[in-house]
Amino acid sequence: MRIAVFAGDGIGPEVTAQAVRVLEALDLPGLELVEGDVGGAAYRKHGHPLPQATLEIARSCEAILFGAVGDFTLDHLERALRPEQAVLGLRKELGLFANLRPARVFKGLEGLTSLRPEVAQKIDLLIVRELNGDVYFGEKGMRTLDDGRRQGWDMMSYAEDEVRRIAHSGFRAAMTRGKKLCSVDKANVLETSQLWRDVMIEVSAEYPEVELTHMYVDNAAMQLVKNPGQFDVVVTGNLFGDILSDQASMCVGSIGLLASASLAEGTYGLYEPIHGSAPDIAGKGLANPMATILSAAMMLRHSFGLEAEAVRIEDAVAAALADGIKGGDLGGEAGTQEIGDAVLARL
Amino acid sequence: MRIAVFAGDGIGPEVTAQAVRVLEALDLPGLELVEGDVGGAAYRKHGHPLPQATLEIARSCEAILFGAVGDFTLDHLERALRPEQAVLGLRKELGLFANLRPARVFKGLEGLTSLRPEVAQKIDLLIVRELNGDVYFGEKGMRTLDDGRRQGWDMMSYAEDEVRRIAHSGFRAAMTRGKKLCSVDKANVLETSQLWRDVMIEVSAEYPEVELTHMYVDNAAMQLVKNPGQFDVVVTGNLFGDILSDQASMCVGSIGLLASASLAEGTYGLYEPIHGSAPDIAGKGLANPMATILSAAMMLRHSFGLEAEAVRIEDAVAAALADGIKGGDLGGEAGTQEIGDAVLARL
Ligand SMILES: CC(C)[C@H](C(=O)O)[C@@H](O)C(=O)O
Ligand SMILES: CC(C)[C@H](C(=O)O)[C@@H](O)C(=O)O
Repeated sequence: MRIAVFAGDGIGPEVTAQAVRVLEALDLPGLELVEGDVGGAAYRKHGHPLPQATLEIARSCEAILFGAVGDFTLDHLERALRPEQAVLGLRKELGLFANLRPARVFKGLEGLTSLRPEVAQKIDLLIVRELNGDVYFGEKGMRTLDDGRRQGWDMMSYAEDEVRRIAHSGFRAAMTRGKKLCSVDKANVLETSQLWRDVMIEVSAEYPEVELTHMYVDNAAMQLVKNPGQFDVVVTGNLFGDILSDQASMCVGSIGLLASASLAEGTYGLYEPIHGSAPDIAGKGLANPMATILSAAMMLRHSFGLEAEAVRIEDAVAAALADGIKGGDLGGEAGTQEIGDAVLARL
Repeated sequence: MRIAVFAGDGIGPEVTAQAVRVLEALDLPGLELVEGDVGGAAYRKHGHPLPQATLEIARSCEAILFGAVGDFTLDHLERALRPEQAVLGLRKELGLFANLRPARVFKGLEGLTSLRPEVAQKIDLLIVRELNGDVYFGEKGMRTLDDGRRQGWDMMSYAEDEVRRIAHSGFRAAMTRGKKLCSVDKANVLETSQLWRDVMIEVSAEYPEVELTHMYVDNAAMQLVKNPGQFDVVVTGNLFGDILSDQASMCVGSIGLLASASLAEGTYGLYEPIHGSAPDIAGKGLANPMATILSAAMMLRHSFGLEAEAVRIEDAVAAALADGIKGGDLGGEAGTQEIGDAVLARL
């Protein structure tokens, strides 16, 4: 059971350390944790946000526990050297094509969102975002046109097999939940989306029990405000998924509690909290590690099939919350270590 | 004073008719209204959503009052013939490159949004969306790759002059408001966005009084949920603007009140309510015409410099609302004609 631990920047190391304590406390047979450098931290040490050595560690493991990357003091670097490239590089190199972002409002925490409690409490959705294609990984560049004007350009595209495999991820997820899948695209404008929609419809034939609907991305952004409770599973492309999954997370309010998984074919996956590196509170012992701890639970479930252990962690977090152990992000006063202690005590 | 009136589909004709009544009641010197067919209605009559004759009417006028297009019974048509193409065609043919979408919560209507009243009541923002470029109008297509896979593709791009003119629209708008401009992009991933950001920074030198900030689109979607009151003017590209402006509108709740302008260089503009064709209530006399009436006010202000008349209309709408005249979308019971009457009576 070999797990890579990539703590990264900002609050990444602090929150990851607590998740590691939890994993170690479970007495998992053969547990081996291997640390690696990513993001701005890796750039400072090795001159690259995703060093070859890190990639090799990742490849030698069965899953990655990831903290956060991001460091605005490195914004001046060319894009290929910026911290975020570690994320993009890992996704591409390891074929992590399916990003799963569950969003639901935790009982007792309805007060934290900007949405009215009666709207927020109905949120229980899962966004399945494609991570390996779209305008993220197409050809791109800066050029000077014949008339001397500068132009920036990026190629957006999806091929049918890329859509098909994420469609299956979406339908399979829907089968384990409410059997409703909403595919989000912009087929009234984009050919990429037209292909996306066509393939979604093709794949739906294999899942007769799942109700497939289609929604334009602008309308989806509206519906996530108006009535997020209408969604069960949402499947969408890389760019739209980036926007909508962040919007949905904020609807929940308690971002310090939201975990995510980025999965490859098979059981390999990268698990990370959806909050970022939060440089403003980094190193102060203030960050809430619960989202990272819950990411570790997702890892045990998806990559190692350890459902019971995953539930143990999730119950311990829920119990700590129920006992009022809350980080600053949840309006409480508990620090990073204190929250880690509280979860450990309830394992 | 020659104005094209393109009513379009669904509730378009009903709401436009009320706005026309209001314009006619103002006794504007030399007012001439010229009707033209667009959208599904035009397709049914002439086989095209934007017939040449309609385009000629548009060109012969100084502004367009637009209803709505959209008709899902025509969804089976090839994209070039679908109702929405009327909108895209008018934008491109007439050089309508700057979409202005103000969003603010009307006093007394805080109860209509899904956001908590204390969050919603602070909303007073303007989204300036570029309308002539980006992935909307680049080359695009469907192809079969060498290995036989189908692929959909769309080219995203911005050239510096395209960004510069919308930057000026954004900065000028900020100068008339709170002097804060937030440019939204995805410069950590897209070269198109990097060029966008570079040009925004260049143009900012001409507006030393305006505070320019940059935000990634995923974060912008979050911040619009968390604290939409932080924004004054937001400037962004065509695709991100499509998503964020709809999200922002829904934050306001009362979509039946939101007007928009799509402006060319100079005074030419197209004015339309942001709600769509609402086929479910079309022809029933239930649609709220206030957003279209307010679009007519925007037209008088921007295209004809008639500030006093614009304010007269806006005050009349506000007075009708204050007197409890509300359409079904606002939780009231007033019908289309009744709301038109009420606004006319208060002009
Ligand atoms: C850091 C950035 C490149 C990344 C993305 O856009 O995918 C992030 O926003 C995310 O969603 O993980
Ligand atoms: C109908 C569609 C092509 C259009 C767009 O995406 O621009 C609409 O959503 C809008 O925002 O006016």
